Amino acid sequence: MAQQPPASGHPFDQALAFTQRAPGVFDGRPHPAYANMVGPFGGITAAQMLQSVLLHPGLLGEPVALTVNFAAGLRDAPFVIEARAARTNRSTQHWTMALRQNNDDGAEETMITATAVTATRRVTWSATDVPMPAVPCPADVPRQQPPPMFQAHFIQRYEVRFVTGHVPRVWDGAESDSVTQLWTRDDPPRPLDFASLTAQADVFFPRIMRRRAVPTPAGTVSMTVYFHAGASELAASGDYLLGQARAQSFFNGYFDQSAELWNEAGQLLATTHQIVYYKE
Amino acid sequence: MAQQPPASGHPFDQALAFTQRAPGVFDGRPHPAYANMVGPFGGITAAQMLQSVLLHPGLLGEPVALTVNFAAGLRDAPFVIEARAARTNRSTQHWTMALRQNNDDGAEETMITATAVTATRRVTWSATDVPMPAVPCPADVPRQQPPPMFQAHFIQRYEVRFVTGHVPRVWDGAESDSVTQLWTRDDPPRPLDFASLTAQADVFFPRIMRRRAVPTPAGTVSMTVYFHAGASELAASGDYLLGQARAQSFFNGYFDQSAELWNEAGQLLATTHQIVYYKE
Repeated sequence: MAQQPPASGHPFDQALAFTQRAPGVFDGRPHPAYANMVGPFGGITAAQMLQSVLLHPGLLGEPVALTVNFAAGLRDAPFVIEARAARTNRSTQHWTMALRQNNDDGAEETMITATAVTATRRVTWSATDVPMPAVPCPADVPRQQPPPMFQAHFIQRYEVRFVTGHVPRVWDGAESDSVTQLWTRDDPPRPLDFASLTAQADVFFPRIMRRRAVPTPAGTVSMTVYFHAGASELAASGDYLLGQARAQSFFNGYFDQSAELWNEAGQLLATTHQIVYYKE
Repeated sequence: MAQQPPASGHPFDQALAFTQRAPGVFDGRPHPAYANMVGPFGGITAAQMLQSVLLHPGLLGEPVALTVNFAAGLRDAPFVIEARAARTNRSTQHWTMALRQNNDDGAEETMITATAVTATRRVTWSATDVPMPAVPCPADVPRQQPPPMFQAHFIQRYEVRFVTGHVPRVWDGAESDSVTQLWTRDDPPRPLDFASLTAQADVFFPRIMRRRAVPTPAGTVSMTVYFHAGASELAASGDYLLGQARAQSFFNGYFDQSAELWNEAGQLLATTHQIVYYKE
């Protein structure tokens, strides 16, 4: 058994510190600092799924795409993530991952499935077609605490400053748009990397609550992140991200969310999409 | 070995007519009518991956999400698709799929990986936040043939009527936006269903060519479709779809594409996203 790498003091790094049982097979567990109301924050689980690829001894290149499917709510118990290179090409690698936990009978169950694409990139003509919205800088936007109904440990791990589209303060069923713009960074601050960018792709509260101003149980079912930066661009990005999220369709129990994440300099670092169950 | 289901005369149904070797294990092959310049049209492959779930004897519900990862270009040769329910819940089911072909040495290789979520839906409050753009109806938009460089068999299988953002006629490097709006339906016409909606989610030509007016080799690496309609809504939809696609970021060899597909009545049936390799 490999030694567990020393975790830094930051809870995010502690959450990503796995023990490698065999090549690509990692032991970990949900971190209490990232607990949501039921189970862990989906963003930390997505980051942990990506981490299994980033730690894989056979990794080629850097993440280009990640899809995480939340098949079941995680237990507050150890898990095993297995990452497997389904195919390795000259400059791309296709990954399948699964997170498993034991159920009450001691039988292993699949809780999360995921796929990722990693690639070695070459410098090419590049451009962004969605400029960052004109918004005040983070220092000029107050940090808000969410309403009491959103109390969960993970919320304290993100410094969120809503620019537009805050969580409704009054649940009066007044329909509006589903747009939120916010600044976000790790709390305490931490240098941006692929894992923290992935987690923050899920930092938005469920769009249906913004859209309807009705408290609505909701949970992400599947989430995709496309990365538009390399490790060096992320490291040079500073730690604040401007996130913008909106829904496009709410239909019979599932809505989608699309979001963009820019750094403070206005570079689009990631676009992300998810489909979310809601219970009306 | 199960009998191959009788294929209708439509080439799309022929492409989706698999032989079930064992529960969830299907023999098929690329269909010549959907050939692209190299390998098959990605949309037909995505539809075939979904079909392995739709034909699975243990299927629960209808598709909510699909992600297909194009790990390698398919050979014009038989393939096996295996669909596996990684987890079945009360109202949702999480699928992992893989398409394999033999290489020149007769060894089986993974060419495509995919995941899907299916679910039984309940009728809930529903809404669309992206209204269909105001465009002329299909009969008022001429059907265009693509430029000679885009000749491929699959193009004849779609009746595409560009509203805005046609394939550039002059490759002069004049940069513009990356938006295309088009009407599309199967040719010959065919009732809309989850598989044909999936295929048409990939009907747009590579955004980088629209953006730059430079001929650029490009290929989809990963594609996600979120379904915002059930089988009955699709069956009642008519066969024309209005598609709108745009890119958000082009960065060091990969760009993204997001698109919406509405029926002629203006219902948003699917939102779809992909990340695409480009070679500059």
